[in-house]
Amino acid sequence: MERYDIAVIGTGPAGLSAAVTATIRNKKVLLLGSKELSIKLGKAHEIQNYLGFPAVKGEDLAAAFQNHLDKMGIEITEKRINAVYSMGDYFALQSGEEMLEASAVILATGVVQGKPLPGEEELLGRGVSYCATCDAPLYRGKDVAVVGYSQREEAEAAFLSEVCREVLYFPVYKEETNLPETIRVIREKVSAVENQDGRRIVRTSENSYTVDGVFILREAVSPGQLVPGLPTEGPHVTVNRSMEAGIPGVFACGDLAGTPYQYIKAAGEGNIAALSAVSYLDQKKRIN
Amino acid sequence: MERYDIAVIGTGPAGLSAAVTATIRNKKVLLLGSKELSIKLGKAHEIQNYLGFPAVKGEDLAAAFQNHLDKMGIEITEKRINAVYSMGDYFALQSGEEMLEASAVILATGVVQGKPLPGEEELLGRGVSYCATCDAPLYRGKDVAVVGYSQREEAEAAFLSEVCREVLYFPVYKEETNLPETIRVIREKVSAVENQDGRRIVRTSENSYTVDGVFILREAVSPGQLVPGLPTEGPHVTVNRSMEAGIPGVFACGDLAGTPYQYIKAAGEGNIAALSAVSYLDQKKRIN
Repeated sequence: MERYDIAVIGTGPAGLSAAVTATIRNKKVLLLGSKELSIKLGKAHEIQNYLGFPAVKGEDLAAAFQNHLDKMGIEITEKRINAVYSMGDYFALQSGEEMLEASAVILATGVVQGKPLPGEEELLGRGVSYCATCDAPLYRGKDVAVVGYSQREEAEAAFLSEVCREVLYFPVYKEETNLPETIRVIREKVSAVENQDGRRIVRTSENSYTVDGVFILREAVSPGQLVPGLPTEGPHVTVNRSMEAGIPGVFACGDLAGTPYQYIKAAGEGNIAALSAVSYLDQKKRIN
Repeated sequence: MERYDIAVIGTGPAGLSAAVTATIRNKKVLLLGSKELSIKLGKAHEIQNYLGFPAVKGEDLAAAFQNHLDKMGIEITEKRINAVYSMGDYFALQSGEEMLEASAVILATGVVQGKPLPGEEELLGRGVSYCATCDAPLYRGKDVAVVGYSQREEAEAAFLSEVCREVLYFPVYKEETNLPETIRVIREKVSAVENQDGRRIVRTSENSYTVDGVFILREAVSPGQLVPGLPTEGPHVTVNRSMEAGIPGVFACGDLAGTPYQYIKAAGEGNIAALSAVSYLDQKKRIN
């Protein structure tokens, strides 16, 4: 299997900056995320403090970032990473049923906005899942609910509808949905997930729905979820000034690494994380 | 006397970013440094990893930064700060014989490139000075040597020539000098400064020169020199992830806050330092 030097997870300013610097340093980089870059950035009305771009629209800044990637020939691989496992000498990145390999990992996935739903964490792995690609087979011919935090999650719901009997879709956004007709879209605010008689109850402000499995799909998963054993503080990965996370070879940057949530701060941290990852790889090479 | 909310010392990417963010947050900002911004930036041949500006010339990136300042109406005050003193409730910034006041200070002065000259630190304050404006009166009618690390120091040498008997100027750069004719320019590499019989000896690779005082003028002074009592590690100010230096109300960012020496990292840290300074001021206001 192809092993990358550095896998960068996330295509916000932190991840892009990390990929740019690691590429300049001649590392074989796998940049994982959405080709639409960061949803938050693309929708930002006006950003005033990204030095060099006065009063820039989010979409224009995103276009400048894309142009930077294009000029350097950096491509984005659109795969969602469900978990990162330390294998001693390298890291295995699970994307659905596929495994990818990298010698170092830079986490730049942003932060989960908002708190988990009541019941979500307790039922995780026991009826609640964050990954349709991984867990769809468990619900073949059964009923599931999908709580989708952005339009990007609709593809996962569509995939589930090919496998499951009924799919209820609870969009946590205002935009129109664009889903297969077999999916029932319910515009109610989900308030909790519960376990009852071996099935799951999705409670909303108005109703209750009984299903077999609940998929809660957000832009970012919590970092402790993504990398088992990673030291975290609330929604953030614990890092030092070199952006080293608690596991050798793992680095974090951007919103995921803590406040303030600012684009230029994220880009700066991506640069640091990349250089620290390069040092880590060079040092490892000297030892081996 | 006018008291600023935040004084930002330094006009490289860190200082500019700090000034931009502090201004957006409605603080009264005093941005101190050179209107030519950072010499290092302006001369950079090509910068590849300032996200959003692929393969940009240093001068073009500097122009983009200047445009950002212009669009926001941020002006640079060209004063060299010799020392920052904590006065309890505020900070006094000494610029030659003038004193300026600010409630918080962001240090973004870059790092001193290279090691001090042999004898430099031992003789500091006893024949060696970093500040012509401050110490020129001590050498009225006497002979001095100036070791100038950039063309910007020539103005200081010119000022000394109005006061001193003889000024020897040792440029530590390749560019032509543009100095009053009375100043003797010596293109020899200074190797040490010594004390002998109450006078100073400047040793070069080829000769020795006897003078009364030696002015060593660099872009940046060491941070411990600038802010007495500030915790430092080598040429760097010790900071945490919020860019707080060891004295409440003092923040540091950019090269001064540690490696890597990268423009985007500096800009990111300037943003963090500004937001931390804003928090500090807001908290102080709540207490008082």
